[in-house]
Amino acid sequence: MNICTYSYEEYLQLVKSFHGNLAPGLIIGGFIVDLALKNLPEGEFFDALCETPVCLPDAVQILTPCTIGNGWLTIINFGRFAVTMYEKQVGQGVRVYLDAKKLDNWPEVRDWYLKRKKKHEQDFDLLLARIKEAGHNLLGLQRVRVEPEKIRRKKMGPIGLCPICGEAYPARDGESCRNCQGETPYTEITGIEMQL
Amino acid sequence: MNICTYSYEEYLQLVKSFHGNLAPGLIIGGFIVDLALKNLPEGEFFDALCETPVCLPDAVQILTPCTIGNGWLTIINFGRFAVTMYEKQVGQGVRVYLDAKKLDNWPEVRDWYLKRKKKHEQDFDLLLARIKEAGHNLLGLQRVRVEPEKIRRKKMGPIGLCPICGEAYPARDGESCRNCQGETPYTEITGIEMQL
Repeated sequence: MNICTYSYEEYLQLVKSFHGNLAPGLIIGGFIVDLALKNLPEGEFFDALCETPVCLPDAVQILTPCTIGNGWLTIINFGRFAVTMYEKQVGQGVRVYLDAKKLDNWPEVRDWYLKRKKKHEQDFDLLLARIKEAGHNLLGLQRVRVEPEKIRRKKMGPIGLCPICGEAYPARDGESCRNCQGETPYTEITGIEMQL
Repeated sequence: MNICTYSYEEYLQLVKSFHGNLAPGLIIGGFIVDLALKNLPEGEFFDALCETPVCLPDAVQILTPCTIGNGWLTIINFGRFAVTMYEKQVGQGVRVYLDAKKLDNWPEVRDWYLKRKKKHEQDFDLLLARIKEAGHNLLGLQRVRVEPEKIRRKKMGPIGLCPICGEAYPARDGESCRNCQGETPYTEITGIEMQL
């Protein structure tokens, strides 16, 4: 059993190294991305859409050229465990999702995914074993079409210099940057000398 | 000259492999993350906050344990080229930013970053050479405090099954999932048989 071009064990190593731990969702995510790539419609360049920020985007980043920083991966926070790979010009794509109807065949996976068991009631090794057994059998597949321009990251546009903080920012945001307009996440801020 | 535990050349290889190309912003991002890690306040566990989705999050993902999928990296779209690493309990942290005031010493970097030259007018190799020369000299450093609970990804909470699509979703989103409430990015959707 392979996950894209990796053996299952190689994929687990990549998950540990990139994500920091063997998150069950990221292992299911490996099967999701694998199934999506095996069922791509025609086209040369595919972007990714992930319907949850939890775990799944890392499967996309490990297994495809799409990352959050290069803009080929978009995350929308629907909280559905699904990845869509779509041809970036016309938007024809394939969507793979964890199919809740199939979960009853895999009670450990169901109780973890639907949060029917608390963490300390779960048998982690058994859960991982069942996920491996189930593989693609937990998943569903759809042909979809998206409007790429609605999903993809917007271009920055012209750059301004914020009159308050002095940093560069997208001029379309207004007369100062969004931080200085009051959305700042910082409660304290002080300039310091750097240590190299 | 090193970028965290990597030589400069090793870092460029990681950038190519993960991000797909030698994006100038991601090379500056390497210096930003390096400087942040060298100036961390006391603390054991640090999360990352990135003030732009463009390029910079990939420097964080390549060089730190923080990824978008494990929730230790948060992105806010202020369009400022800055990364904050903060202690995850109390929020004490360090913020490193590209300091616009220092750009005049590096005209190629300035004209690229402030979009004063079109792409075909830029000398890409010269730009990369100047970024390497400039290194940390383009950057500024601040001690900051954030409120971690305001920044970090919210927990999913209880799970519901959407009565329309049948998929699991965060019950707090309402009586159906956000996709089925009308926010769908899909203009067409059809179930198909999977090819393995």
